[in-house]
Amino acid sequence: MGTNEKEFVKEITPRNEDFSQWYLDIVLKSEMMDYAPVKGCMAIRPYGYAIWENIQQLLDRRIKATGHENAYFPLFIPESLLQKEAEHVEGFAPEVAWVTHGGGEKLTERLVVRPTSEAIICQMYSRWIQSWRDLPLLINQWCNVVRWEKNTRPFLRTSEFLWQEGHTVHCTEVEAEEEALKMLGVYKEFAETELAIPVISGLKSEREKFAGAMRTYTIEALMADGRALQAGTSHNLGQHFAKVFDIQFLDKDDELKYPWQTSWGVSTRLIGALIMVHGDDRGLKLPPRVAPLQIVVVPIFTKKGREEVLQKAKEITALLGENFRVKLDEREGYSPGWKFNEWEMKGVPLRLEIGPKDLQNDGVTAVRRETGEKSFIPEKVLAERIPELLEEIQGELLRQAQQFREEKTHLVSDYTEFKRILEEERGFLLTHWCGDPSCEENIKEETKSTIRCLPFEVSGKISKTGPCVRCGKEEGAPVYFARAY
Amino acid sequence: MGTNEKEFVKEITPRNEDFSQWYLDIVLKSEMMDYAPVKGCMAIRPYGYAIWENIQQLLDRRIKATGHENAYFPLFIPESLLQKEAEHVEGFAPEVAWVTHGGGEKLTERLVVRPTSEAIICQMYSRWIQSWRDLPLLINQWCNVVRWEKNTRPFLRTSEFLWQEGHTVHCTEVEAEEEALKMLGVYKEFAETELAIPVISGLKSEREKFAGAMRTYTIEALMADGRALQAGTSHNLGQHFAKVFDIQFLDKDDELKYPWQTSWGVSTRLIGALIMVHGDDRGLKLPPRVAPLQIVVVPIFTKKGREEVLQKAKEITALLGENFRVKLDEREGYSPGWKFNEWEMKGVPLRLEIGPKDLQNDGVTAVRRETGEKSFIPEKVLAERIPELLEEIQGELLRQAQQFREEKTHLVSDYTEFKRILEEERGFLLTHWCGDPSCEENIKEETKSTIRCLPFEVSGKISKTGPCVRCGKEEGAPVYFARAY
Repeated sequence: MGTNEKEFVKEITPRNEDFSQWYLDIVLKSEMMDYAPVKGCMAIRPYGYAIWENIQQLLDRRIKATGHENAYFPLFIPESLLQKEAEHVEGFAPEVAWVTHGGGEKLTERLVVRPTSEAIICQMYSRWIQSWRDLPLLINQWCNVVRWEKNTRPFLRTSEFLWQEGHTVHCTEVEAEEEALKMLGVYKEFAETELAIPVISGLKSEREKFAGAMRTYTIEALMADGRALQAGTSHNLGQHFAKVFDIQFLDKDDELKYPWQTSWGVSTRLIGALIMVHGDDRGLKLPPRVAPLQIVVVPIFTKKGREEVLQKAKEITALLGENFRVKLDEREGYSPGWKFNEWEMKGVPLRLEIGPKDLQNDGVTAVRRETGEKSFIPEKVLAERIPELLEEIQGELLRQAQQFREEKTHLVSDYTEFKRILEEERGFLLTHWCGDPSCEENIKEETKSTIRCLPFEVSGKISKTGPCVRCGKEEGAPVYFARAY
Repeated sequence: MGTNEKEFVKEITPRNEDFSQWYLDIVLKSEMMDYAPVKGCMAIRPYGYAIWENIQQLLDRRIKATGHENAYFPLFIPESLLQKEAEHVEGFAPEVAWVTHGGGEKLTERLVVRPTSEAIICQMYSRWIQSWRDLPLLINQWCNVVRWEKNTRPFLRTSEFLWQEGHTVHCTEVEAEEEALKMLGVYKEFAETELAIPVISGLKSEREKFAGAMRTYTIEALMADGRALQAGTSHNLGQHFAKVFDIQFLDKDDELKYPWQTSWGVSTRLIGALIMVHGDDRGLKLPPRVAPLQIVVVPIFTKKGREEVLQKAKEITALLGENFRVKLDEREGYSPGWKFNEWEMKGVPLRLEIGPKDLQNDGVTAVRRETGEKSFIPEKVLAERIPELLEEIQGELLRQAQQFREEKTHLVSDYTEFKRILEEERGFLLTHWCGDPSCEENIKEETKSTIRCLPFEVSGKISKTGPCVRCGKEEGAPVYFARAY
């Protein structure tokens, strides 16, 4: 065993000591990413990118099942297009990258590297939409976007990131609203089913909504350090963009009308959420549905019977390889313990150990990453037991995350208590807010917390109205506050 | 039927009249793409993008089966990195887009929007590679790239395009050479099997090789107008990049060495090749393996029995939908003939017509796009016959393309004849060349044709050596010349 190998299993900073450093240790040591020589940009390494590929595949299926088609729009947006929608340009202009030269010449008009694609897509839609027959237009795009961020953190906030953005056009306000809510529902179901991340869904406040939207809906997840993360958003854009980009359709009643639009997106930030929701001091804990490797098979060699153990390990790997993402770790010169550590750090949901004793007993020892629980599985029931076990692990990760979120959700009506919780415990603070932006602004300044959403569903948790936590005014609506990423 | 609908089925310019206009008519009318308001950029519409998704899926499977993993590297490359490899920067600097401002400030160093990713990837690899144990490193990336082109044409040459780029690192020159050739072989098999496009594989001349490569291999296809198209390339990069980016590994013999690298790519240009190889005056002809829709079902209504026909059409669509990409065209107010024209224009490989007579005979009428051949298929053998038929169509498209290429491949040794063929017939010109760059340059100036490749395989077609077609010097090697896209 060479020096490099000994050094490989380094300590990960404990979560309680420095959560932020724990996160950075994990993303680097698991080889999910590396810093790139461009400020705020990263290289997504194969182990991180494989998670994104799984996310793409599982979400793309849902996007198509709800009637959307994929397309691709240009990376560059002429300055004049971005400037058409006033709120939109105000929101994005400060954080864009500008292309000023191309092909050795200064451009006559500067180009923005897309921070989001409403402007360029609406420009195209104005050519594609003439009649009610062209609607609804349901298009999605998977691509890279660029927002020049000052404070960056791998996966959570980077100057370039990968995402999908849906852009739809509808005849009526009702249809657009239905679409925006439907896609938020798709995100919520996706996050909970595939990522094992429970989320709260609701409406953003005016202050927090997307630049140019009429209404923004969001799903909000709680990270292990008690901070919230916006995991996906869906916007009812109203007619704002249709009017400035002159998208009009001839309706059945022979009248020219402006249609209603939505847009919605999730990004590589979901990978950050996976890490921060499930990980522990040993490293990643990946839900089986999106894990690059679902199972690692580790042969345990003693002096005798080496060949038989390796042979059986290969057989089992081949058998499981038909239906699962499985890897045999047959590397020489690494101890089993070292391999266990490495694959635990990389968050592989299930480890199968095969030693001489397992061989003798015609089975394997299975070790679950999320509980550490060991069990012996006879070979003859392996093909049947493994999918059950992976589903159990998936379910247990969701259960753990739900339990944590419940424990960290504080029902609060007193502002002193509100502030104390944010200092000492964090988590979601479910309270009432009068709806006044100045109360929201004051709370943010005084506590660094923001309104995560006005939740759709609060039944049994909090009364439907109550006094504002900041000003005491009656008839406030339920809101979740939190410090957020 | 409204005015819009009547206008829909417009004439496509005949190929013989103006091939270039025929191509543009098709890409626009089939709704594969639309021009974007940025010079040389396009929006890829759902019908075009679905082809790209099929290409991605089928090729990605092969890239992974040969041991590669996907990753993602930054869009932006600092100027200083691009400049490290002298030939590389000379080749690409004139056609890049420059980002000079970000987040409201002028950048201290200009950034290039990647025209290809060798520079940024090698920079990362220099951190990831220490030992022979880290090799081979086999990574692929699917992404967008930007090259500021003066003369653009949808799919074939656009300022932004989508592609995959593989970047691998190996201990030895032999391994790198094997990899470069292996991936060219993957491209060739992919093009012929999935796209039904026969290609010639071989080595590029020094003049035509990739900027920074030691050797470039290529697959070359012949378009219906007799011009060649470079459909994919694979480069043995030698140690050029390793040396300037300081990628070194400790070999088994404990010596620090520079590794050997390859890179290889295909792009959305393949969609252009599909159009120009298979299309005809009625529109697209898409090979079933990559067609967005493989089958369109058109119910034919008469006054009586409308419901029964529609019911049967729905049943058959549902049945076939389990295994194929199929669409039922049940639109009102469009005649069957109009629908036939539209789906033929869109290149759907197989049309199933269901009218009262078909219903009576318990079957459907199948019409093949590539031959126009009609046949009656009893319903009870439908599930069995359809996959055979699609395979026959796939095979027939390849056969037609092969036959065309053979007819348009001219064995020529006389330069006057060489020039005449290029003026009158075009196609591939198989001849001998002495290897002197000045002969190559002269031929290009005099005939606008370039060396497409020094083919791997010429047995039976031309002698292994012969006098150079331009200067007559003996011992020239076989080469394919053509005018090219």
